[in-house]
Amino acid sequence: MTRKPTPEDRFAFGLWTVGWPAQDTFGVGTRPPLDPVETVQRLADLGAYGVTFHDDDLIPFGSPDTERDRLIFRFKKALEATGMVVPTATTNLFNHPVFKDGGFTSNDRSVRRFALRKVMRNIDLAAELGASTYVMWGGREGAESDAAKDVVAALERYREAVDTLAQYVTEQGYGLRFALEPKPNEPRGDLLLPTIGHALGFISSLQYSHMVGLNPEVGHEQMAGLNFVHGIAQAMWHGKLFHIDLNGQRSVKFDQDLVFGHGDLLNAFFLVDLLEHGPLNGGPAYDGPRHFDYKPLRTEDIDGVWASAAANMSTYLLLKERAAAFRADPEVQEALATTRVPELAEPTLAPGESLQDLVADRSAYEDYDADAVGERGYGVVALNQLAVEHALGARLP
Amino acid sequence: MTRKPTPEDRFAFGLWTVGWPAQDTFGVGTRPPLDPVETVQRLADLGAYGVTFHDDDLIPFGSPDTERDRLIFRFKKALEATGMVVPTATTNLFNHPVFKDGGFTSNDRSVRRFALRKVMRNIDLAAELGASTYVMWGGREGAESDAAKDVVAALERYREAVDTLAQYVTEQGYGLRFALEPKPNEPRGDLLLPTIGHALGFISSLQYSHMVGLNPEVGHEQMAGLNFVHGIAQAMWHGKLFHIDLNGQRSVKFDQDLVFGHGDLLNAFFLVDLLEHGPLNGGPAYDGPRHFDYKPLRTEDIDGVWASAAANMSTYLLLKERAAAFRADPEVQEALATTRVPELAEPTLAPGESLQDLVADRSAYEDYDADAVGERGYGVVALNQLAVEHALGARLP
Amino acid sequence: MTRKPTPEDRFAFGLWTVGWPAQDTFGVGTRPPLDPVETVQRLADLGAYGVTFHDDDLIPFGSPDTERDRLIFRFKKALEATGMVVPTATTNLFNHPVFKDGGFTSNDRSVRRFALRKVMRNIDLAAELGASTYVMWGGREGAESDAAKDVVAALERYREAVDTLAQYVTEQGYGLRFALEPKPNEPRGDLLLPTIGHALGFISSLQYSHMVGLNPEVGHEQMAGLNFVHGIAQAMWHGKLFHIDLNGQRSVKFDQDLVFGHGDLLNAFFLVDLLEHGPLNGGPAYDGPRHFDYKPLRTEDIDGVWASAAANMSTYLLLKERAAAFRADPEVQEALATTRVPELAEPTLAPGESLQDLVADRSAYEDYDADAVGERGYGVVALNQLAVEHALGARLP
Amino acid sequence: MTRKPTPEDRFAFGLWTVGWPAQDTFGVGTRPPLDPVETVQRLADLGAYGVTFHDDDLIPFGSPDTERDRLIFRFKKALEATGMVVPTATTNLFNHPVFKDGGFTSNDRSVRRFALRKVMRNIDLAAELGASTYVMWGGREGAESDAAKDVVAALERYREAVDTLAQYVTEQGYGLRFALEPKPNEPRGDLLLPTIGHALGFISSLQYSHMVGLNPEVGHEQMAGLNFVHGIAQAMWHGKLFHIDLNGQRSVKFDQDLVFGHGDLLNAFFLVDLLEHGPLNGGPAYDGPRHFDYKPLRTEDIDGVWASAAANMSTYLLLKERAAAFRADPEVQEALATTRVPELAEPTLAPGESLQDLVADRSAYEDYDADAVGERGYGVVALNQLAVEHALGARLP
Repeated sequence: MTRKPTPEDRFAFGLWTVGWPAQDTFGVGTRPPLDPVETVQRLADLGAYGVTFHDDDLIPFGSPDTERDRLIFRFKKALEATGMVVPTATTNLFNHPVFKDGGFTSNDRSVRRFALRKVMRNIDLAAELGASTYVMWGGREGAESDAAKDVVAALERYREAVDTLAQYVTEQGYGLRFALEPKPNEPRGDLLLPTIGHALGFISSLQYSHMVGLNPEVGHEQMAGLNFVHGIAQAMWHGKLFHIDLNGQRSVKFDQDLVFGHGDLLNAFFLVDLLEHGPLNGGPAYDGPRHFDYKPLRTEDIDGVWASAAANMSTYLLLKERAAAFRADPEVQEALATTRVPELAEPTLAPGESLQDLVADRSAYEDYDADAVGERGYGVVALNQLAVEHALGARLP
Repeated sequence: MTRKPTPEDRFAFGLWTVGWPAQDTFGVGTRPPLDPVETVQRLADLGAYGVTFHDDDLIPFGSPDTERDRLIFRFKKALEATGMVVPTATTNLFNHPVFKDGGFTSNDRSVRRFALRKVMRNIDLAAELGASTYVMWGGREGAESDAAKDVVAALERYREAVDTLAQYVTEQGYGLRFALEPKPNEPRGDLLLPTIGHALGFISSLQYSHMVGLNPEVGHEQMAGLNFVHGIAQAMWHGKLFHIDLNGQRSVKFDQDLVFGHGDLLNAFFLVDLLEHGPLNGGPAYDGPRHFDYKPLRTEDIDGVWASAAANMSTYLLLKERAAAFRADPEVQEALATTRVPELAEPTLAPGESLQDLVADRSAYEDYDADAVGERGYGVVALNQLAVEHALGARLP
Repeated sequence: MTRKPTPEDRFAFGLWTVGWPAQDTFGVGTRPPLDPVETVQRLADLGAYGVTFHDDDLIPFGSPDTERDRLIFRFKKALEATGMVVPTATTNLFNHPVFKDGGFTSNDRSVRRFALRKVMRNIDLAAELGASTYVMWGGREGAESDAAKDVVAALERYREAVDTLAQYVTEQGYGLRFALEPKPNEPRGDLLLPTIGHALGFISSLQYSHMVGLNPEVGHEQMAGLNFVHGIAQAMWHGKLFHIDLNGQRSVKFDQDLVFGHGDLLNAFFLVDLLEHGPLNGGPAYDGPRHFDYKPLRTEDIDGVWASAAANMSTYLLLKERAAAFRADPEVQEALATTRVPELAEPTLAPGESLQDLVADRSAYEDYDADAVGERGYGVVALNQLAVEHALGARLP
Repeated sequence: MTRKPTPEDRFAFGLWTVGWPAQDTFGVGTRPPLDPVETVQRLADLGAYGVTFHDDDLIPFGSPDTERDRLIFRFKKALEATGMVVPTATTNLFNHPVFKDGGFTSNDRSVRRFALRKVMRNIDLAAELGASTYVMWGGREGAESDAAKDVVAALERYREAVDTLAQYVTEQGYGLRFALEPKPNEPRGDLLLPTIGHALGFISSLQYSHMVGLNPEVGHEQMAGLNFVHGIAQAMWHGKLFHIDLNGQRSVKFDQDLVFGHGDLLNAFFLVDLLEHGPLNGGPAYDGPRHFDYKPLRTEDIDGVWASAAANMSTYLLLKERAAAFRADPEVQEALATTRVPELAEPTLAPGESLQDLVADRSAYEDYDADAVGERGYGVVALNQLAVEHALGARLP
């Protein structure tokens, strides 16, 4: 019954996910650290195709160069031995006290410079390992006091940082694109670029905007009570869904990083449907890695860690089957038509229709029977019920 | 003690605010309708300078043309008699059943066309009345089911609508700009353009993006748990704060539309500070109308309505005094320096510094003592406490 | 595929659910009123066994006695004709302006007296119609300003009201119990008895506490971000789950009243499991009506209304099948044992163990190897994944 | 301007508050540990009267007895030297991995027994140090999966634990009462006893319920979007406000533990008003310690830590002045009367009025003019505005 993934499914995990020792604000870790080499091997055995990392996941902060080289060497060997790839990498700008007021937007200019250099160094490694996406989560870019952070200046520094790094990638000739990861809060009281939307707006102001997209995370949007499927759709509409972080979250609270599907299950179903098939009226599907950014529960031992990794992939594959059946069901197609979903793909103005034409069309306004149209039902509940039944596997052939 | 406004303060109210009869999902109205002419008079008496409206506030939906003309005529007379202006107008695309699945993004194309025409007609009136901003709140642009709305197509239709209307304004030679008003949910389960950020991203994709900015509302962002001051700062950074809706909200729940300051009081203080003085490190302040979009509580009679209107303005003026004292306090300036707030205005790269220079600067990375810097305190709490004391009037001279 | 209910399933609906004309704070109704007689017939046809009502649903506020009698007469005839029962009734203390500051806790004593009388009158009718539960939702018992409601006094009045009504029922010899329905907010800014917990505490202070229990509603607890299954379990533990309101809600926002299962689907699965089978370690299941308190979406016409009513029941039955398979699966039983779920049923002190015995047990403390026990995993994720797969019908035989 | 406290103000702090090294889920600590002896001295210098602790704050987990004795000895000496008292103590049942599935409600019985013994040992110390309240926060009593915790059984174990400990205190003749501290979530996905209400309900089921009350924390209720002032009022109504944890929180998100007043400032004003003066219509005020349970921001160094401690007390004293002026203002009294706040203290039934009398009172129902009463305004906004102006110090004499 459990679905077994293959590398063709393009599932990837961060070293920091299965490797999280389970410390939190209220308690120490419950699990020993994992050797990245073991992680690569185990993830490969489970059917993943890729592994991702923060610099400090692979090379502890402050390691001397020789140790750094050694760690990278054996990591590469593990990749070669397993065939695992590194589709994505990122930088830890949140753990060390130096970043306590931010990395790119710290009030302390020396911290900002240090942050840039730390990122550049790991970009070199990411490029060397063949990554195509470089993720940026500004975990400490934010504030708890509205007096202590000039947000306008902070956004200017954020822009400077991202453009500078894009320039670096360009000058080095690396084949990397950037993916910003929004989050509304935690660990800071309020984070900059709190949602998919804020990041999209920010990107539009960049000099190198063509190189910068998004890495949205399920739970991060749901922490703000936002519909993740809507957010992903808007990112797709902008052509900016460069990467995705899959996990689970239960309502508006702290960042739970649950297993994918263990949060809002119905939204997860529609998400998989959108990623795999593209919008309902057509348009490109998502073709990047299916990347899990989750935390195995603090109650779990190492066996539970690997079970949780497998659960992420299995649930995704299960929902993928359900989404395929949903799309293929003629009754669903009929219900979509009743709800007039396809009609939304039609431009509101006819081909070649001018504003003058629109104004002259009495059927559009003067003779329009709004009351009669207002009485027409859309059949939304019946359609949604079909989706629920497909999600629940109640309409399998 | 109550602060008395003058027209120079540029306070404005929607007809629908004081005029709300106080019906809600669970109960009928508790107050009789207000005559717009009386509203203009009373708001003028209270010290407001402007009044705004949805088309249907002034002219009930479906009124014959002669009635429409009569209503406009007497409204204009009231404006003339009082000197009140109409800085802004907007369209009701949410009350009538015809809009139950949206206006610009209804699945029904005929509804979309009707919506466009309804907006165009009221734009004509707005221009005639001298408005400079036209607000768009897409109160029914959204969905309750992820199966029933193709969000990618919906955004495409939204873009078509806004660009079409911008073209109309341009062709007509009206001096109007558009201001989009984001909201995360209610009355739809999820609304399109749910936050300031999503709207900023959307605007960047418009053909007429130069004509389109934002009308953020305090409570709408706070309904998503977002920091309104941060959102306004980002809108300012993009040059898109075209208008503002002031009110109060208490945490993440239904849209309360409380009196300004009767929600998150500390955030209101910082908001007034930002609007009046611009960012902490300099930059333009907000120069548009201070527009209140609130609802007098359902418990109030008409006297309570006018008392609530006065309360909005009085609280704003009070916080404005407090913000001025905050900015002028040398101890605050010292605390800002301790927190290194001014240092965030300095570019991270030195003038003319190249990437090569940055990489060559060993003090930025190789010789950087991250541990030592990590120990330095930012003095954020002391600064915030100064702000709290200023807000509370505890540091008045 | 759609599950067809029978009266044995004990599904019930409020007249106000399918009969909601779909007005909300931002728009007028989109559907005509439903005749209660038609509602009874249609619900019976769909397989429901019961119908419930607020007094004003059946008899419009202010109807003369003769009209009241007529309406009751034909309603009874419809019940007889269909075999439908009235398991529950309730009072509308929220729609009319007189209740704008509350019913039982209005600051106006005359309103409180009027509210008591209004409830008493409908209790008479409920008893006459054979109801066994009388629900109380204090939709306007609350406040927007902490200055305007003395909550201590309000709770005293709330207690007076409930005890007075319990005395009335007792004196009349009616076979009725009361079920309080908590809600955190909306339509008031803050409601009294905001959660299951607050109502449980309140009930413990009543003179007639044995006659008063709860009517929790899915969405009301989820509006506060609380786990509904946990809340129901606590209500069961207190022996106070007298009734239940089933519906759907998507995260912390306004009260959505979606179809059951169209909100948090996984929590709905565990809810059905708890209601049907009782706690995991045994204990009584729920034996009251499965009552839906939802609103058909405003986008629906009357066909959509009946489709939505059917969807509630169908989804419940589907999840009931899934829960049965979950409980019956030996692999689930094994996983529960690994997670030590059964061990929680064992008292912490041994039978007859005294405090002195516990203190003397060195294995419990002095010789306890906390570090070793801390390393043991609980296998929670594997167990939860089994539950997800059962919910999704992926482990059907 | 900064208010200086004295011991008569009865301000107390936990050792773990100023002593928090500022580690969180995403980053290591930024401050060195504080010696409890230094903490006692510094808090005394700042004007506090008391200090509180978890066992592990004072005596690191696993310390040998001789080290334990030494640490207690020097702590006592510091108390004597400063005159500081220990009004309250508590147990750490959340940091060590052994408690990862809970203390009193861990699925593992041996953990539950260990937890009981750990608490008993620290109760002995609390009694020895003269504490009168023993706090219980069940930081790990909860779950992430509805399959992994039988909540009914868990509440039974919770009850067993609290009653067992109450029996222990009774048998030992200690003058201690227990205060339960509710929290909705974090670090567990859902916590048991999530709100003030749930804990009140739970307490009512205890054998030793007279010895058990509440220790509500500002932020914990606000994390569920609940009005903290309402919660405190209900706790007072039940006679169960045994202790209080003061801090700040900004909306529904992770547990921020901000300085008191740095969150919802208006609710903080009303809270101080209620604690200091009791309910608006009279009733006992709060007479326990004003205990701060907050975390100095991670951006702060040790100077910032002490500044933040002082800020808590200063803000409380400032709001206390404002509340006194609010209560003394004749205009406020008049506004309260307009809002009919005093009328809520009047019983709804007249003294000696029977149910028969009520039914016979035609003025209460048959002749009641609900429409006329429904038109009367309550003047809530005007009253609330007076409160806002008092909070802001805008109505000082």
